[in-house]
Amino acid sequence: MTKSYSLDEINAIIGGILNKVEDIKIEKLSPPLLADDSTLALALSEEEIHNLQMSDAKAALVPFGAGLEHITTIEVERPRLAMMKLLHLFYTPPQTHHGIHASAVVDPTAVIEEGVSIGPNVVVCRNVKIAKGTKLVANVYVGQGAQIGCNCLFHPGVNIGDAVKIGNNVIINQGASVGADGFSFVTETQSTVEAAKEQGSTDGDFSTQKIYKIPSIGSVEIKDDVEIGANATIDRGTVENTIIGKGTKIDNLVMIAHNCKVGENCMIISQVGVAGSCNIGDRVVLAGQVGMADHVNIGADSIVMAQSGVSKSIPAKSIVFGSPAMPRKEYIKQMKTLKDAEFLIKEFKKYKPLLDQFVESQE
Amino acid sequence: MTKSYSLDEINAIIGGILNKVEDIKIEKLSPPLLADDSTLALALSEEEIHNLQMSDAKAALVPFGAGLEHITTIEVERPRLAMMKLLHLFYTPPQTHHGIHASAVVDPTAVIEEGVSIGPNVVVCRNVKIAKGTKLVANVYVGQGAQIGCNCLFHPGVNIGDAVKIGNNVIINQGASVGADGFSFVTETQSTVEAAKEQGSTDGDFSTQKIYKIPSIGSVEIKDDVEIGANATIDRGTVENTIIGKGTKIDNLVMIAHNCKVGENCMIISQVGVAGSCNIGDRVVLAGQVGMADHVNIGADSIVMAQSGVSKSIPAKSIVFGSPAMPRKEYIKQMKTLKDAEFLIKEFKKYKPLLDQFVESQE
Amino acid sequence: MTKSYSLDEINAIIGGILNKVEDIKIEKLSPPLLADDSTLALALSEEEIHNLQMSDAKAALVPFGAGLEHITTIEVERPRLAMMKLLHLFYTPPQTHHGIHASAVVDPTAVIEEGVSIGPNVVVCRNVKIAKGTKLVANVYVGQGAQIGCNCLFHPGVNIGDAVKIGNNVIINQGASVGADGFSFVTETQSTVEAAKEQGSTDGDFSTQKIYKIPSIGSVEIKDDVEIGANATIDRGTVENTIIGKGTKIDNLVMIAHNCKVGENCMIISQVGVAGSCNIGDRVVLAGQVGMADHVNIGADSIVMAQSGVSKSIPAKSIVFGSPAMPRKEYIKQMKTLKDAEFLIKEFKKYKPLLDQFVESQE
Repeated sequence: MTKSYSLDEINAIIGGILNKVEDIKIEKLSPPLLADDSTLALALSEEEIHNLQMSDAKAALVPFGAGLEHITTIEVERPRLAMMKLLHLFYTPPQTHHGIHASAVVDPTAVIEEGVSIGPNVVVCRNVKIAKGTKLVANVYVGQGAQIGCNCLFHPGVNIGDAVKIGNNVIINQGASVGADGFSFVTETQSTVEAAKEQGSTDGDFSTQKIYKIPSIGSVEIKDDVEIGANATIDRGTVENTIIGKGTKIDNLVMIAHNCKVGENCMIISQVGVAGSCNIGDRVVLAGQVGMADHVNIGADSIVMAQSGVSKSIPAKSIVFGSPAMPRKEYIKQMKTLKDAEFLIKEFKKYKPLLDQFVESQE
Repeated sequence: MTKSYSLDEINAIIGGILNKVEDIKIEKLSPPLLADDSTLALALSEEEIHNLQMSDAKAALVPFGAGLEHITTIEVERPRLAMMKLLHLFYTPPQTHHGIHASAVVDPTAVIEEGVSIGPNVVVCRNVKIAKGTKLVANVYVGQGAQIGCNCLFHPGVNIGDAVKIGNNVIINQGASVGADGFSFVTETQSTVEAAKEQGSTDGDFSTQKIYKIPSIGSVEIKDDVEIGANATIDRGTVENTIIGKGTKIDNLVMIAHNCKVGENCMIISQVGVAGSCNIGDRVVLAGQVGMADHVNIGADSIVMAQSGVSKSIPAKSIVFGSPAMPRKEYIKQMKTLKDAEFLIKEFKKYKPLLDQFVESQE
Repeated sequence: MTKSYSLDEINAIIGGILNKVEDIKIEKLSPPLLADDSTLALALSEEEIHNLQMSDAKAALVPFGAGLEHITTIEVERPRLAMMKLLHLFYTPPQTHHGIHASAVVDPTAVIEEGVSIGPNVVVCRNVKIAKGTKLVANVYVGQGAQIGCNCLFHPGVNIGDAVKIGNNVIINQGASVGADGFSFVTETQSTVEAAKEQGSTDGDFSTQKIYKIPSIGSVEIKDDVEIGANATIDRGTVENTIIGKGTKIDNLVMIAHNCKVGENCMIISQVGVAGSCNIGDRVVLAGQVGMADHVNIGADSIVMAQSGVSKSIPAKSIVFGSPAMPRKEYIKQMKTLKDAEFLIKEFKKYKPLLDQFVESQE
């Protein structure tokens, strides 16, 4: 059965200014070019507003002041915020099993609260606790002693290691790994990396050296309202827990290494790699493919631009770029220097014969 | 039982020029140094042709014009194309179950056509359709309403989200995620990134800001003949579908974000990250670890070289490099400027005392 | 029941110098600030030694010569090595099933030696061999003909492709893929990449071109004592096997492509991507997010610094940085040139009017 909403119902949710040309029922959302006469067209950008002219839509969500006349509009101050609210009307959550599926393997010592959904082929180990309303869709693994809060949603193929603590309302996407072993090793004698730091080279004989694994006795703590992307990995701590702060969002294929402490409401975009023992302040944005060396701190409200490599700690409210990363202003200056140098080289070549002549004349 | 082919059978497949020194049966393929007397040695490069001298091989696949005399050769115009055809003779497909395995969990509303293989621990949700000859090896998840074409091969651990549409002959490798939630959020008020774009800094108090998830009501469409690598992730669209065009090949650990439209016959190499709402033309090559900012377009037949970061749209047939990416020629010029500058600095230091003297003399 | 050790028992394991102020029982390990009176505080860095002043710890592991008096210390030459030994005392291995779990699907032709643990939902295909003491925790897939040595530990969600050979004591973390298809394709006629290499551009019409998959008849060999990180991917070889040498450690989300030969005791940090047919010597360190072009060789004891892109082979004991990578010293010189150029441009502008005047005077 198709969901259907009146324009007034829609506007009651988003609190905009409704300029009604014709009364219609809204049964779907789409960009203008894909709209029909029961669609609320989402015309959030200038391009999409322009596309309304070629659209079959009879109603559109538009930014405040768009001032269209021949079509019903709802004008809002912050269109993406309004769109978010509307998308919830048309969103279908994944299929979840009522209770514990027959194919799931749940250890008898596990404490499973009411309203928990444990789907097909889910494995829940001993001493696990799962609180009310949490849903493990399918093929999820939860290691011994893990504690999971209320109303979480774990998509298929998620793996949760031993003793991981997860708060409330946490969403973990397909195939993500929380609580795998930290990548932590030690050699009996000096390693090549230690040699390079000390003497600037890897001269010496390292051929008999053995590498030992440092076991991780720490685990991972994921605070409330965190989201973790598909196939992302968050490793357990060596002694203490790796911590992801409340409200932080982590995109697909991100790597957070052992011992890191990530603040609240951070945005960590796809394929970012954070090495061991980093501290990241609140509301830090790490753009796509950023790398961070180990033991580096990033102050709150900082932005690290895409593909940058942060090798040294940076203060709060920094905006940095480059590999190695530098303040964005410095980077822009460096690029200008390179342009200037190009010009200068041409100029210099012009003067060079005269300069040579002058040099000669002085000798 | 070992497969065995006569030299004429082999040559009939690849259509080369057979120079037969001795008639043998071919039971395997290998590089020259690992060959024995029932091997067709693959000597595609000059190095491998050289290695034939030290090989036990009695027959070799070689490029046209190699002109070897003491060994049976098949000369071909395009050796890798010939190798591809021969490898098919010796390839063993993964073990698949006949029909639906007892441990699989298939919703009664799912429509499974004849000749479909559904292996151990596979989960198929309601209203799924799977067409003839498709094979889900093991531990695969297919979300509600997904539609899968004919003759697809999904390797173990693949996760397919709700309403994903997949064409014919699609191969998805181990652990890949198709149709996880897009990484899409909105704040009630201005975020640090919005502030940085507007005012160039993150000055201000963002501490009370809440982040809301924008649900993805779009899904993913994968057209015919696409291949997706192990642990790669392709996210669902916000309103429309994310689309991967016919024949496009996507390597391991690649990230394709929400709303992207990828053209036909593209090659997207390992660890590439494409941010939301990008448009990629036909036959575009994104080399390893390339990153693309959101809302960027790449024209057909373009090549983005490895590790580049594409921040602005580029026309068809571009070849770009660098982070941020620029035309390859510009990058080469920039590198030359840097070399020249080094030389210039030395030269300038030579003239500087005289220039200073000259300046003084003019005062 | 809490494990508890005397100070002498602890010191017997790590062989340090015990300066006993008070005799206590050690029940846990932690950093100084989280310690209580039954903790051995781990004060390995200067910062942590400083933190002992604010700690409730009555005993600490410290580097040799720390010279603390009011607290029991064990001084050691190489604190991380000592820490590694102590962490083993407090480490709990993951929960494993005794024998073969009822939900596992094991082909009757598979040879499973004694003491092997096959957990819930594990799939083992035909002709697989698994040697003594190896543990497959849960949701693991092992393809036909794979051979796995003694005392391995495969975490949940690991996927092992057909004919993969794995040595002894190998640890594979959550979601890792070993033996997926190589990313190897060929076109009937010249591809855009071939054109670009030959003519420097992608001019021409490639629109009718078909792409063919080159099947992988090679597999993967993982030697003894290797560790592979969560969601990492190691692809099968085209004809020969991809090989990972003894003792090599591979971090999360790393990509090792088809045909690569990786030496012994290498450290390959998170998100590194190695393209096809590379040779990597023994004890090579590839730092985070490094990329390597195909067919590139790296000599033994080399270090490739984070985010570098290695496009050409490099000799043993190299230390390289940058994209494209160059010797670290050259990179430092290049950065200095850029700084000097900035200064030079200012200077040059100072002289320019006089130079122009001089040029005029000579005309």
